[in-house]
Amino acid sequence: MNFNTTLDNIKTYEAGKPIELVVREYGVDTKDIIKLASNENPYGTSPKVTEAVKEIAHKMFLYPDDSMYVLKEGLAKKFDVNENEIIIGAGSDQVIEFAVHAKLNAKAKVLMNSITFAMYEIYARHVGAEIIRTQSREHDLEEFYTLYLEHKPEMIFICTPNNPTGDAIDTDDLIAFLKKIDKDTLVVVDGAYMEYAAYKDTKKSVSAKELIKEFNNVLYLGTFSKAYGLGGMRTGYGIANKDIITALYKLRPPFNITTLSLEAARVALQEQAFVELSIQKNFEQMKRYESFAVEQGLEIIESYTNFVTLCLNENQNSSEISLSLLKKGMIVRDLKGYSLNAVRVTIGTENENTRFFELFKEVTSN
Amino acid sequence: MNFNTTLDNIKTYEAGKPIELVVREYGVDTKDIIKLASNENPYGTSPKVTEAVKEIAHKMFLYPDDSMYVLKEGLAKKFDVNENEIIIGAGSDQVIEFAVHAKLNAKAKVLMNSITFAMYEIYARHVGAEIIRTQSREHDLEEFYTLYLEHKPEMIFICTPNNPTGDAIDTDDLIAFLKKIDKDTLVVVDGAYMEYAAYKDTKKSVSAKELIKEFNNVLYLGTFSKAYGLGGMRTGYGIANKDIITALYKLRPPFNITTLSLEAARVALQEQAFVELSIQKNFEQMKRYESFAVEQGLEIIESYTNFVTLCLNENQNSSEISLSLLKKGMIVRDLKGYSLNAVRVTIGTENENTRFFELFKEVTSN
Repeated sequence: MNFNTTLDNIKTYEAGKPIELVVREYGVDTKDIIKLASNENPYGTSPKVTEAVKEIAHKMFLYPDDSMYVLKEGLAKKFDVNENEIIIGAGSDQVIEFAVHAKLNAKAKVLMNSITFAMYEIYARHVGAEIIRTQSREHDLEEFYTLYLEHKPEMIFICTPNNPTGDAIDTDDLIAFLKKIDKDTLVVVDGAYMEYAAYKDTKKSVSAKELIKEFNNVLYLGTFSKAYGLGGMRTGYGIANKDIITALYKLRPPFNITTLSLEAARVALQEQAFVELSIQKNFEQMKRYESFAVEQGLEIIESYTNFVTLCLNENQNSSEISLSLLKKGMIVRDLKGYSLNAVRVTIGTENENTRFFELFKEVTSN
Repeated sequence: MNFNTTLDNIKTYEAGKPIELVVREYGVDTKDIIKLASNENPYGTSPKVTEAVKEIAHKMFLYPDDSMYVLKEGLAKKFDVNENEIIIGAGSDQVIEFAVHAKLNAKAKVLMNSITFAMYEIYARHVGAEIIRTQSREHDLEEFYTLYLEHKPEMIFICTPNNPTGDAIDTDDLIAFLKKIDKDTLVVVDGAYMEYAAYKDTKKSVSAKELIKEFNNVLYLGTFSKAYGLGGMRTGYGIANKDIITALYKLRPPFNITTLSLEAARVALQEQAFVELSIQKNFEQMKRYESFAVEQGLEIIESYTNFVTLCLNENQNSSEISLSLLKKGMIVRDLKGYSLNAVRVTIGTENENTRFFELFKEVTSN
């Protein structure tokens, strides 16, 4: 059977390997597996969120409130924006999908960083858009601007902090950049890890409210998957002026969030103390990675997230090292697919990180 | 900001009104609200499924196993097909979306029944495809074939039993029809309510295995949202030969099912006794609706599902009656939007149905 030719160019996203797969493929005992591959919150989900979900678990047979009234109300309060400036997606991924399908087509161009979140490219390929990338590893807004002038893309992705490298843009630089972009270009500012960046350095803190007040062409993205500890519940959101939100809503399938996800996210928003403690511990543990990198003579990209990117030496191969770690039950993310001889490691709990350091030394000393 | 022109023609899907909204808008007390609008299983979710979800609720922070290995294994066993002949979606809706995006584009045509599941059209409009519809209210495969010859559509939707009318096609007729369709036309056979039809009349029972064995251009759809009692968990599936599945997989976003949904669906598959009892009670209660229709002098379309479509008399207005019922806390589905002066009522529990009969008489006697 013939399918649309756009499918020929689609690469499938390679997800971080789940624990279940390592058990199946390498026979490692579940209790010996540590997953530092998908930037989940290593402190789990707030107990109050778990309790709330258990309490309504028997309501799984009911479709969710498709207006998402209560969760939107919570988000509107948190960000001090209107409810009609918010759209909720099955992960912020899905909001990216809506935006790409709303704005791009086979004749359009999209600009993004050389190394950035893989789904931008994947969704752009769905619609056959032309992808323009910068050269520099970290976001360089001057390079972005040069390419913008050259190509006049319909859409630009800015990921700050960036995944999978962890670097973040100074907010002042971002604002100055946005001022130079024409108002028919949709700029997505993906803040999936923003809670971490804002804690570490206020200069990196982006306010969704200020962004959308000043720029009617900006879509800010956030998620419950990282600091809020709900990676498995697929809930993210987009914030933008209401014309953008109205357009994206046209592409939103009904019931795109599960009944339990809505409840989990609602309660998670009230658990700020849990989130803050998670972030605080994250940066305490990050220092150990920074010391470890120095000790091992490795470059570590300065990170404003809950992961670090360890750039390996020439005599080391990130794919081999990742596989060796995997066989020992330590799951990290090989970045070879991003043309980086590096591994991305989620900052885990104290014990998990200690184990990573041990195993990394073990597999690299052979 | 300008968006793709395809957005201009997209109607937003109108979901059945959730209980929360009726509370908010009409001030009805939650305990007085009965929702017979979205064809959820009125007997809820199997208690074992609820228990299983509660047990892993604390794992919400972990992304799901994106290979969906265990659930696919369960489905492969149930349908006696291979795991590479299955794709899992956030509801079968999402599999429809994959199929439409894989097969249709602005130059393509799609054929569907005059009255059928609204999402077929909505997704087709996303890609700008031309929509061809039959005239007859129930599926008439001869009319389908005539239109097929005339328009040569790239894709055909057959919904059996059909939503929102409840009628079902004889399997022999379906097979005979499929034999006449060329192999580059993708035929979607949507069996969201098939468990009900198969119980009521074996002549209506479609075997996914036999379909895909004989036809390499057929995609069969099933869901956990209806008989399996998991409407809120957004889990459905497509079954087809592996070439179709491979193509659809290219459009599947990673982690399209939540961690708790995967577990709920896995356990639900083992709860066949719960499903069968739900279906048995459904048809016992359906008899009451049939008697009620006779008593009220209303046409009822013969239904092979967990809902009935009551066609109202000329002096009755389905929108007014639905609204009057809503204000009394009884949520049903007005079919005016489908050009039918009818209401679709989910067959509830004994008490819920009794209440519907009472309220319907009340609001129509005024």
